[in-house]
Amino acid sequence: MSENTFESSDSARHAKPLRHVQSVTYQEPLPLELGGSLSSVTVAFETYGKLSAARDNAVLICHAISGDSHVARHDPEDDPGWWDILVGPEKPVDTNRFFVVCPNLLGGCRGTTGPGSINPASGKPYGRDFPTVTIRDMVEVQRKLLDHLGIAQLLAVVGGSIGGHQALAWNVHYPAQVRGTVALATSARLTSQALAFDVVGRNAILRDPHFHGGQYYGRPQGPDVGLALARMIGHITYLSREAMTQKFEADRLQPHDVAIEFEKTFSVGSYLGYQGTKFVERFDANSYLTLSLAMDLFDLGGTPGQLAASLSASRSRWLVLSFSSDWLFPPEQSRDIVNALIAKAAPASYCSVRSACGHDAFLLPDDFARYGEMVRAFLDNLATLPGAAAPVKDEPPGPTSIFHARRLDYDRIVELIPAGASVLDLGCGTGRLLARLKQKPHGRLVGIELDELKILAAIRRDLDVIHADLNGGLRAFADQEFDCVVLSQTLQAVQDVQGVIADMLRVGRTCIVSFPNLAYGPLRRMLSEEGRAPRSYGWLRDKWYDTRDIRFLSIADFEEFCREQEIRIDRQIALNTEVGHEILQDANLNADLAIFVISRSGAIA
Amino acid sequence: MSENTFESSDSARHAKPLRHVQSVTYQEPLPLELGGSLSSVTVAFETYGKLSAARDNAVLICHAISGDSHVARHDPEDDPGWWDILVGPEKPVDTNRFFVVCPNLLGGCRGTTGPGSINPASGKPYGRDFPTVTIRDMVEVQRKLLDHLGIAQLLAVVGGSIGGHQALAWNVHYPAQVRGTVALATSARLTSQALAFDVVGRNAILRDPHFHGGQYYGRPQGPDVGLALARMIGHITYLSREAMTQKFEADRLQPHDVAIEFEKTFSVGSYLGYQGTKFVERFDANSYLTLSLAMDLFDLGGTPGQLAASLSASRSRWLVLSFSSDWLFPPEQSRDIVNALIAKAAPASYCSVRSACGHDAFLLPDDFARYGEMVRAFLDNLATLPGAAAPVKDEPPGPTSIFHARRLDYDRIVELIPAGASVLDLGCGTGRLLARLKQKPHGRLVGIELDELKILAAIRRDLDVIHADLNGGLRAFADQEFDCVVLSQTLQAVQDVQGVIADMLRVGRTCIVSFPNLAYGPLRRMLSEEGRAPRSYGWLRDKWYDTRDIRFLSIADFEEFCREQEIRIDRQIALNTEVGHEILQDANLNADLAIFVISRSGAIA
Repeated sequence: MSENTFESSDSARHAKPLRHVQSVTYQEPLPLELGGSLSSVTVAFETYGKLSAARDNAVLICHAISGDSHVARHDPEDDPGWWDILVGPEKPVDTNRFFVVCPNLLGGCRGTTGPGSINPASGKPYGRDFPTVTIRDMVEVQRKLLDHLGIAQLLAVVGGSIGGHQALAWNVHYPAQVRGTVALATSARLTSQALAFDVVGRNAILRDPHFHGGQYYGRPQGPDVGLALARMIGHITYLSREAMTQKFEADRLQPHDVAIEFEKTFSVGSYLGYQGTKFVERFDANSYLTLSLAMDLFDLGGTPGQLAASLSASRSRWLVLSFSSDWLFPPEQSRDIVNALIAKAAPASYCSVRSACGHDAFLLPDDFARYGEMVRAFLDNLATLPGAAAPVKDEPPGPTSIFHARRLDYDRIVELIPAGASVLDLGCGTGRLLARLKQKPHGRLVGIELDELKILAAIRRDLDVIHADLNGGLRAFADQEFDCVVLSQTLQAVQDVQGVIADMLRVGRTCIVSFPNLAYGPLRRMLSEEGRAPRSYGWLRDKWYDTRDIRFLSIADFEEFCREQEIRIDRQIALNTEVGHEILQDANLNADLAIFVISRSGAIA
Repeated sequence: MSENTFESSDSARHAKPLRHVQSVTYQEPLPLELGGSLSSVTVAFETYGKLSAARDNAVLICHAISGDSHVARHDPEDDPGWWDILVGPEKPVDTNRFFVVCPNLLGGCRGTTGPGSINPASGKPYGRDFPTVTIRDMVEVQRKLLDHLGIAQLLAVVGGSIGGHQALAWNVHYPAQVRGTVALATSARLTSQALAFDVVGRNAILRDPHFHGGQYYGRPQGPDVGLALARMIGHITYLSREAMTQKFEADRLQPHDVAIEFEKTFSVGSYLGYQGTKFVERFDANSYLTLSLAMDLFDLGGTPGQLAASLSASRSRWLVLSFSSDWLFPPEQSRDIVNALIAKAAPASYCSVRSACGHDAFLLPDDFARYGEMVRAFLDNLATLPGAAAPVKDEPPGPTSIFHARRLDYDRIVELIPAGASVLDLGCGTGRLLARLKQKPHGRLVGIELDELKILAAIRRDLDVIHADLNGGLRAFADQEFDCVVLSQTLQAVQDVQGVIADMLRVGRTCIVSFPNLAYGPLRRMLSEEGRAPRSYGWLRDKWYDTRDIRFLSIADFEEFCREQEIRIDRQIALNTEVGHEILQDANLNADLAIFVISRSGAIA
């Protein structure tokens, strides 16, 4: 999809065909989702690594609209693959460990049956007689291929963009055959804006006078102008505005000297013209129409309920990744998928990866250090034996006694949570608390976190973690979905205190809130005797002007808050972390840290 | 530019020509910026209202790419104008008071000379022989028209999108003739992304086989497909993604029954097809090429320095408005213009209007209640006699004594600022402090504010106010640009305290900071005796969980901060606003409000 993907290898490909491509042909008819059938289907594919004896290490890679089966190099002399950063020996999709299968899509033009294939009924290429195929049909062909390869269940299906649509569709149509799903830069259906661009692109092809009703094969000219225009529109949507600025502002009026008449004024135009022309050389316009329409017709539902119903059968564990500057498949669409998974209590992690690269980010190295490692960690965890606890990699303790205090805090919270309870940890950080809970019998464990690197760390701990801002981040969870919701040492950094606490009490039968106590004696004295803003004790370690804490409260303040908001206090624990024990007398003066177990008045605890 | 603009009146227009359009023809050659000339030029235009005897009430409206001279109705029976919401009796551009002139653009196809006009040299339409014209050439033709109308100086030039380019260009080429500029949804040059869409659109036209080198006039078919494709791409870029979702999600797969073959699957496609077809009926493809290229070539500079140099001659007062969801002319581009104006100390106000409507927002009623009133207030202030103080409309005092306290605060700050000083007020709110300073001799007065309605109020007070977040908002100001920078009762709500204070000290020779004192006796006692977070006194009136304040500091804390940051304290005033007088003894205990006058150590005060 990105120019970086194909540009360098195009000429080589035209010179020598893909050396490692295999193919298999099914002679029986393939019935299609929207009616009709194909009398036979050939699938071109490439494989990497070895299928294990248990046949449990297969990873299916689904390519994007302009991709093909050549996802990675087979050896150092091989042409680059379109996802070389992700797939290969010791790469996140590690071909030393996994058996990777990448087929060309049904309807494509790189070996798998498509509109350019010979229609047995006429002896000519299908052209526009090629039926409308759907993402489901593509998945059906992939399933046949996996049968052929002796793979009953996938360790994981991985795809971005329309490749992500296929990954989603696997979970809809063959849920039992997918253990893990990695969906990147994708959506449950296209935005109206993305649809609109596709419609314009398709119509540029269809209304090209050289289209000849799709039977342009063998003629001196096909719908080259239309296909080039469609590709150019596509290219604009694959890049972010920032990325285009970066790429073209420096020499805005110096178009590169390219051998086409397309554009001689603006650099960005000469770039697009070049991309369009190269694409026409390697891609079939009918395939573009077919694949683009399949993408546009993909629709798992436009409401949260419909989407949740579509994904209801999924038994997979999920890693959903979006990219902050992707405006073709914007992050909120990935979040919709994640919300639907949350609604069915599916194990899922999500990150909106900070990126300037737009939709193409999932193919580019720029942000790969972060999201590639998330894919690696996710697959590593999937590949461990079922039931075996994944190793918890703990970060080294910090240089101050702060970490002592935090452990004391966690000790008590862990004690407060009954065995077998399901727990949602708000502001879970790297997942230390959840990792501890995981070591004893537990129910569903989910973390919410805003920091990308902490999310990566939590995924490495084999936890399910959702990238979200607490202020509004619980909407996806149902009433009373968790036995326990924890807000540990985070309340003081929350903007919308009332909203977050109310949402906790809605989602959790019981809630545990811990916070530093502003009325702890030494803090009182700082203000009353020294006339200084309290700081430097326990959690209030930063100065007034650089702390991330924005809310300051005492135990008495929180008690009053609970009274006013009709919140029941089920239990109250006060700690002095300086001396390391619990405070039983005059807690508001003697404790620096408070733990409250609360629930909604009237609810059954 | 919006479909709402033309849709309803198109058929009427084809049936009856614009009734009120006038025209004037200049027989002398018009030399063009990029070389060549036009041997004669006709300008079509409409006027509204009456030119005053002093000829000082003329407002020039510049239309966007698909607009024309018919900006508003002339009477209730008249066809709707494309900017009826803005222009008319008692509208923001009040035709009862102002003489409004709206010419069709040079290169257009609605009466003014363009590629469809007869080329005197050949006796045929110009077609592609029409020379490349620039925004400057358009302005030149407008200037000739104003000469003809006897207007030596404009009260204001008003335009959005490419109309905004013209408004900017007036300031570059005829700065003495413009007293006020209202630039909406525009930029100093297009983004590479916007350029890219234009390039694709133009090439769809140029490569249409019915283009015939531009000489399609009189033929049965012109480059209709290409022009429709260009228009469809344009339409996508004029709407925001949110707006498209709103418009098409409900009946995504129910295309309206339109009489075109364009699209039968998706509603959004049938909408675009309709728009494209309608456009082909009313617009000339060569004009589209000409105007779109003029827009793309417009370039006041890609760096802050170049842009400031381009605008250096402007003598205008400015109102710059962008729209938050406009991704074709994104708000940061308007901010670039404003930054260039700030750099030359030009009087300017700016607001990024919160809108879901995308680029089209400036033509639509959705957000008009806010931005339309800004235009009204700006023009009202411009139209008052030079030197006369505009009436300060004060909001009613609030229901609590808070306003008493605030006035006391302002009293002292006003006293501290020497007569004639230039002042930047950070977090200026509705402009109360600046309005008071304006009543005595003063230098340049500028406010910065984040709240849209407060910005409107400040504009109504005849103040220059810039919409910006303080955290990073001072980058546009030069070192020592103001005599005095004020941060009044805002420090406690600032995230990046160090950054904001450092920037204040860079921009101002002297800085005045006022804030509530956390160590005020009653506040100390709340914590030390009652064990409660201090609140309810003076500024700390909200509860711990719902206050907008996120920084808590005492006078002693701020003194230490100044020592640590090597900031010189030039003066220190402590107030007790409860009793209403200054505190001279033990201020950190007895004052609830502190005012510091600070400067950078080593700087000359």
